[in-house]
Amino acid sequence: METLSETYCCGGRLGFYRHASSVLGLEAAFGVFLPEAALSGTSVPVVHILAGLTCNHETFLIKSNIVRFAAQHGIALVAPDTSPRGADVPGEDDAYDLGTGAGFYLDATRPPWAAHYRMGSYIASELPSLTEGVFPLNGARRGIMGHSMGGHGALVHALGAPGFWKSVSAFAPIVHPAAVPWGEKAFGAYLGEDRWAWDAWDATALLRSGRTHPETILIDQGLADQFLARELQPEVFEDAARIAGQELNLRRQAHYDHSYWFIQTFIEDHMAHHALILKS
Amino acid sequence: METLSETYCCGGRLGFYRHASSVLGLEAAFGVFLPEAALSGTSVPVVHILAGLTCNHETFLIKSNIVRFAAQHGIALVAPDTSPRGADVPGEDDAYDLGTGAGFYLDATRPPWAAHYRMGSYIASELPSLTEGVFPLNGARRGIMGHSMGGHGALVHALGAPGFWKSVSAFAPIVHPAAVPWGEKAFGAYLGEDRWAWDAWDATALLRSGRTHPETILIDQGLADQFLARELQPEVFEDAARIAGQELNLRRQAHYDHSYWFIQTFIEDHMAHHALILKS
Repeated sequence: METLSETYCCGGRLGFYRHASSVLGLEAAFGVFLPEAALSGTSVPVVHILAGLTCNHETFLIKSNIVRFAAQHGIALVAPDTSPRGADVPGEDDAYDLGTGAGFYLDATRPPWAAHYRMGSYIASELPSLTEGVFPLNGARRGIMGHSMGGHGALVHALGAPGFWKSVSAFAPIVHPAAVPWGEKAFGAYLGEDRWAWDAWDATALLRSGRTHPETILIDQGLADQFLARELQPEVFEDAARIAGQELNLRRQAHYDHSYWFIQTFIEDHMAHHALILKS
Repeated sequence: METLSETYCCGGRLGFYRHASSVLGLEAAFGVFLPEAALSGTSVPVVHILAGLTCNHETFLIKSNIVRFAAQHGIALVAPDTSPRGADVPGEDDAYDLGTGAGFYLDATRPPWAAHYRMGSYIASELPSLTEGVFPLNGARRGIMGHSMGGHGALVHALGAPGFWKSVSAFAPIVHPAAVPWGEKAFGAYLGEDRWAWDAWDATALLRSGRTHPETILIDQGLADQFLARELQPEVFEDAARIAGQELNLRRQAHYDHSYWFIQTFIEDHMAHHALILKS
């Protein structure tokens, strides 16, 4: 693991690192924030943060203002990239919603994507193992949150492994990718046209199949979000949660859009949500 | 004035706009944050924020987390660009520290820069007039802050017009550009080699000539700042302030560098500094 940079922020340390990922078969970069207590070796809770389309491992950290509140709660952050980089798949840089910057936090099964586009296993195992081996992170107190495509990632990973991810929240998540254009495009390419294979990576389908999370799921959704009706449709997830008995705090925020300005506004509540669960 | 985008953030409204600047002779973009009270027409105090080298009118707003604290204090923000854009000066895009993204908030007097590189007058008059004519901003309660090159800008404008800029603060400012490489390069190009002309745009020279500000100047400076010894040298300004009788709160912050991670850490204190003065 190579250190790209380390700097102080809010009394803790913000670092960017690169490693050779065996799951991805490529070098991968990620960010880690350690609150002050962790700098002297105290094991602390950790929240993984998954960014949206076009972002990288730095974007959510610098634009969301999450570091301030992670520091206040004494919680570490791990920020992966949004896709492999340099996989050399033909066309991977041609669109903002497929390929580079658009890994959808799943394991592709179809060529030419399957060789490297394996962010699912990277998020579920390799990155937690790596970071918890190097930094004083308490894997028994591990949460996950995300935005848009990353909100999808947070929900499917938490519903798929609720014992592994103890707390979960999302901003404007793609709750039912199998039924909206972003998801249909990406899942079709990464997973093929047999739609039964899509359900394992679709949060609404997971709820419908009986997968739930023991803790309340917090979701904020802006009502001026330009992608609300076409790509996000939180009511679909809300219905599935009610039927499945999943506790859900879905907050509809008048006036707010899909941007990091929206995330900045409500990030304090999300860190408080994770702190309440992870520190109990 | 054209609206590029408007979105909600922290209960207020964040907008980006473009106008034909008569001072610059070019189109110029800027950002404005209005806190909630201003949305119903109440006139509010305003702080102008000047970013550093390579930034644009969005950078300080999105990366510093200033909006949250401006909202809490009910203070508006105005964020200009760091230089003219599209002046078509030969070589203006060749270096990060001269030309595009490096206007140094002064009025160039030498060709080929003098035609458009007039950020000094833009900051001092055109942008305040424009924004106070369009938005409910109280020009009697107007402050200025900045980072690095923008810290230089905030200090020289406040010392040059202390009745106009009622409060001032800076992060890692270039306090004595006439004596450091960044400033020598830019001032030589923009103002020519007659160094007496540089003093009007040098905060330390202004203090030495007897120009002071009636309010305390707040400066944060990281001690792990990679530019500290070569470009920043806050002790030079500190000495000049002591001799001039200028109240100065220069805080040396161990471990912190020159980045927006540093700014994020201390921005709350800066907004409190401005609020205390502007709302008294």
